[in-house]
Amino acid sequence: MRIITLLSDFGLEDGYVAAMKGVIAGIAPEARLVDITHLVPPQDVAFARFRLLTVAPFFPAGTVHLVVVDPGVGTARRALAVQSRTGSLYVGPDNGVLTGALEADPPAAAVELSEPGFWRTPAPSATFHGRDIFSPVAAHLARGAALESLGHAVPVDQLVKLELPPREMVPGGARGAVQAVDRFGNLISNVPGTLLAGRGAWNASIAGRTVPGHRTYGDVLPNEPLALVGSHGFVEIAVHGGDARSALAARVGDRVEIHWGDQPSRS
Amino acid sequence: MRIITLLSDFGLEDGYVAAMKGVIAGIAPEARLVDITHLVPPQDVAFARFRLLTVAPFFPAGTVHLVVVDPGVGTARRALAVQSRTGSLYVGPDNGVLTGALEADPPAAAVELSEPGFWRTPAPSATFHGRDIFSPVAAHLARGAALESLGHAVPVDQLVKLELPPREMVPGGARGAVQAVDRFGNLISNVPGTLLAGRGAWNASIAGRTVPGHRTYGDVLPNEPLALVGSHGFVEIAVHGGDARSALAARVGDRVEIHWGDQPSRS
Amino acid sequence: MRIITLLSDFGLEDGYVAAMKGVIAGIAPEARLVDITHLVPPQDVAFARFRLLTVAPFFPAGTVHLVVVDPGVGTARRALAVQSRTGSLYVGPDNGVLTGALEADPPAAAVELSEPGFWRTPAPSATFHGRDIFSPVAAHLARGAALESLGHAVPVDQLVKLELPPREMVPGGARGAVQAVDRFGNLISNVPGTLLAGRGAWNASIAGRTVPGHRTYGDVLPNEPLALVGSHGFVEIAVHGGDARSALAARVGDRVEIHWGDQPSRS
Repeated sequence: MRIITLLSDFGLEDGYVAAMKGVIAGIAPEARLVDITHLVPPQDVAFARFRLLTVAPFFPAGTVHLVVVDPGVGTARRALAVQSRTGSLYVGPDNGVLTGALEADPPAAAVELSEPGFWRTPAPSATFHGRDIFSPVAAHLARGAALESLGHAVPVDQLVKLELPPREMVPGGARGAVQAVDRFGNLISNVPGTLLAGRGAWNASIAGRTVPGHRTYGDVLPNEPLALVGSHGFVEIAVHGGDARSALAARVGDRVEIHWGDQPSRS
Repeated sequence: MRIITLLSDFGLEDGYVAAMKGVIAGIAPEARLVDITHLVPPQDVAFARFRLLTVAPFFPAGTVHLVVVDPGVGTARRALAVQSRTGSLYVGPDNGVLTGALEADPPAAAVELSEPGFWRTPAPSATFHGRDIFSPVAAHLARGAALESLGHAVPVDQLVKLELPPREMVPGGARGAVQAVDRFGNLISNVPGTLLAGRGAWNASIAGRTVPGHRTYGDVLPNEPLALVGSHGFVEIAVHGGDARSALAARVGDRVEIHWGDQPSRS
Repeated sequence: MRIITLLSDFGLEDGYVAAMKGVIAGIAPEARLVDITHLVPPQDVAFARFRLLTVAPFFPAGTVHLVVVDPGVGTARRALAVQSRTGSLYVGPDNGVLTGALEADPPAAAVELSEPGFWRTPAPSATFHGRDIFSPVAAHLARGAALESLGHAVPVDQLVKLELPPREMVPGGARGAVQAVDRFGNLISNVPGTLLAGRGAWNASIAGRTVPGHRTYGDVLPNEPLALVGSHGFVEIAVHGGDARSALAARVGDRVEIHWGDQPSRS
């Protein structure tokens, strides 16, 4: 029996997440449920997209990832299930929340969830497709339902993608933006750490400040800022034992510049 | 093996919930645990009652619902287990927290938990019956213990009920109150949406403001308020993409009036 | 298959916890996962130590306790697995976070996690040993891997211990400090309740105020302060239906004095 992960903006104080789990338990009682997070800020598709893409690679092939961050619920936006080439499954609205993870785990097939026989009810709530459509579909997939039985095919190159902050190479470095801030106040850019392979010393500039590139937090003194390649694989600006978001007064969307070789930033 | 749901005001930063899960695992290692929420405001029985009644119907029959919001712990209030006619089980203090769910899933039998053989210890902590009485009882029920073995019978019509805000029909509409506010700031009244069946156009008044009734958030422009029948089945006042609690400066207990037909509110 | 508990300072809004669970699921798909808490304040080893020691005793023998509160990640601090005499297992950094629980569940053997064959990768992230070292090791232990296969032995008397607030007996009482504050604002001292056995009436002083000792919250009027032996076994200062932390303007580290017999405090 497969794992089903759950990712939503439903928070933890209401019963929305548990209602989904109850529906799943009624269909696929053996499925193992793992929460990714339910503390996505309400309707923040970009936040959810980032959490999914950093987590999904660590789950076994065949995992069903159920994502319900769905500002368009009840409108004409498509409801999707996507199967990747490795056999993992992604269920959620067609608003870009899935496509970040699908860059690393390319899709083989996608369907629009148009077959009510796999829903909780043929008359789903207009405001809670998570409970009435997405969760039962995820549970049926975990039990082995065939993707193509869930609805009509959607070409995988027609899935909605999110507009993201631009990222580009520049002489002696790269330019991008903060795409996420984590619990510790670490500022996570969209510049992949693989760009730094074999570059030697490097630094990063953000919010008018340049900080040195290192391997880990402990490489600088407590309360000193640094840049490093985070565990998610992106260049991150941090403060050793502190909170870079407040120390540097930075936030999602702020420009980040990476410099390597003998061309340090002069901001 | 059954599902055990957990609902409490223990929060997520302490070890109280995990201690209960450890006790359950020692008795019923195969039981599947699902958290409803542990972020009930301390001792807020009405909040917990609402979450339980909106979630329990989505779990399979036979689920054990363990509820520990217990301002009277250590006093003479009764500790209960209740079996519904459908075979679901409810375990918690006799303070009204269970009886909302039992309106939809009527009780067949109830017992006071007076048999220490089913407790973790015959000398339970005076402050944590969740760990020492309720959790082990829920675990024994999940393993198939008979309800009547847990203690002496309590007539189901003698369970404590909560005093709730009044709800009444008025000419051309209905009157009630906000019974809960969810994570999104949606104001959830105690007026059931079934009252609106076949009524045509309708609206709702709250805090001196009248908002139109619709099917879903996307039926109005972003940041516009509306009323709708929420996924829980009650009339709800919301703001599309926003927070009705702050936009309308409203809160639990505020009066809500519903109007249908040709008698719009003139507040 | 064993239970694995998880305790960290990773919070609930990022994907760090789920990444660990994905790694575990790939190695030990049958292991049952129970969260203790992930809301430890960032890098607060003392907070995590207290939660572990109050929760671990309630889990079945053989449980694997995975603790990732690790300010020294990426530095020379040791990564540990410890087996207790009862057969329970503890996995985490050698910074004192484990040794509180090990006072009640004495260690039989400990190893430094020096064998990369049990890691997720021989090149672990410098910042996320939770995902790359501790979680896979916990999963292998849950599947039955022998402790000694994970690395070279460490004498159990050489594990790092935390410096804690002092605790001492005084004439007619005991002196200690607040070691934790829970969700309800209860002030939990490091004075064990066993000291009070057979003492008769007693009281506690904190922050210039003396409050009477009782059995449970309901023994005083609402909003009145009291002292009691909490469910964790320590003397605790509370307010019935209220928050002692704010009512008494107290916090972790504040001195607590316990008085019994006819020698009430005169602060």
